[in-house]
Amino acid sequence: MKIAVLGTGMVGNALATKLVQIGHQVRMGSRSANSEAGQNWLRSVAGKGQIGTFADAAAFGEVIFDCTNGANSIAALRAAGAGNLRRKVLLQVGNPLDFSNGMPPTLTVCNTDSLGEQVQREFLEALVVKVLNTVNCEVMVQPSVVPGDHDLFLCGNDGPAKTKVTGWLCDWFGWKSDNIIDLGDITASRGMEMWMPLWLRLYSKIGHPHFNLRLMIGSR
Amino acid sequence: MKIAVLGTGMVGNALATKLVQIGHQVRMGSRSANSEAGQNWLRSVAGKGQIGTFADAAAFGEVIFDCTNGANSIAALRAAGAGNLRRKVLLQVGNPLDFSNGMPPTLTVCNTDSLGEQVQREFLEALVVKVLNTVNCEVMVQPSVVPGDHDLFLCGNDGPAKTKVTGWLCDWFGWKSDNIIDLGDITASRGMEMWMPLWLRLYSKIGHPHFNLRLMIGSR
Repeated sequence: MKIAVLGTGMVGNALATKLVQIGHQVRMGSRSANSEAGQNWLRSVAGKGQIGTFADAAAFGEVIFDCTNGANSIAALRAAGAGNLRRKVLLQVGNPLDFSNGMPPTLTVCNTDSLGEQVQREFLEALVVKVLNTVNCEVMVQPSVVPGDHDLFLCGNDGPAKTKVTGWLCDWFGWKSDNIIDLGDITASRGMEMWMPLWLRLYSKIGHPHFNLRLMIGSR
Repeated sequence: MKIAVLGTGMVGNALATKLVQIGHQVRMGSRSANSEAGQNWLRSVAGKGQIGTFADAAAFGEVIFDCTNGANSIAALRAAGAGNLRRKVLLQVGNPLDFSNGMPPTLTVCNTDSLGEQVQREFLEALVVKVLNTVNCEVMVQPSVVPGDHDLFLCGNDGPAKTKVTGWLCDWFGWKSDNIIDLGDITASRGMEMWMPLWLRLYSKIGHPHFNLRLMIGSR
């Protein structure tokens, strides 16, 4: 499949590398066509990928992973171009973290709105699915780094897009479909992004990012 | 033990009833000395408790459960009186939920501050422990309504107070100490309270509140 990965950070790297490894055609997008981070990634996968601008990548991809830094996601997606996102599934992965006031980061948007919603509102014809933002990038692409069953959330306004994403997460990364929880429409992004402060605290407590939560359910 | 339970809602009721059942002396506090909600509770425990104002209850308690509606907690604790909270462990349970704009509720404070922090800042001599706010009140007092291991978070600035609270949660309600996770100082209240939007979404999805999360941890 032709896949765009927007963003050259840790998350974009992990996803793009995994997607190349399993045989997809991947174009990584960044602000400039030939960014140093992009070139580093391309070398790391022995040239088995492509790099370009956000627009180059988005035009190429049948599916788009938005792994940009959440504070800049809207700008990056504008650079990608609304026309290049039209009718495509857009996996919106980044969290709206603000590091400008030091650690721990705060959220640039929360409570009454979310980045997932902002992206869907701005790009009305993209099929936005908020997903993967609740776990570390190594857990995203290899859930078995955390033993046992553990859960991933997703949300979005388009049912068929969520069904596709669920299938891809299972086929590409090894998630179990029973462990993927559809929280409903895109407004559930609020809760998914507001999980970050607790995740960050747990990260600090545990000392590494290879953890996740499992939902335990009793009877009514 | 002499225990104050501030708040006559579902959470106050569940905690006060359980504490009476296991033999503690409980005084439930509300805005008025003889509130209808307080009287209803007193009847439900066959008179084996006491009711009074927030100040009556706080003066009585060696330990204080703040189960007031989060939007009103500061006002309720002011009515309880700083002097009645001094040097006492204050289990701050309520979440700062704002229902004034309909469902789902938003938080009255989040991201850069939290109710737990506000309470500790205002009542400097109280030993504030944020705890129990991440689960439904029936799970609080009987964790076995959710099968298997699942986790509870707490935080606060006073180490000995957190140790005491951990012991009480185990002895009184049946939590396992291994499942109680100390997230550090009171600023961790942010993450614990910001879990609410995801909890509410899961509640809506699952259809009942008898669920909790279990932390699954891999290796470094």
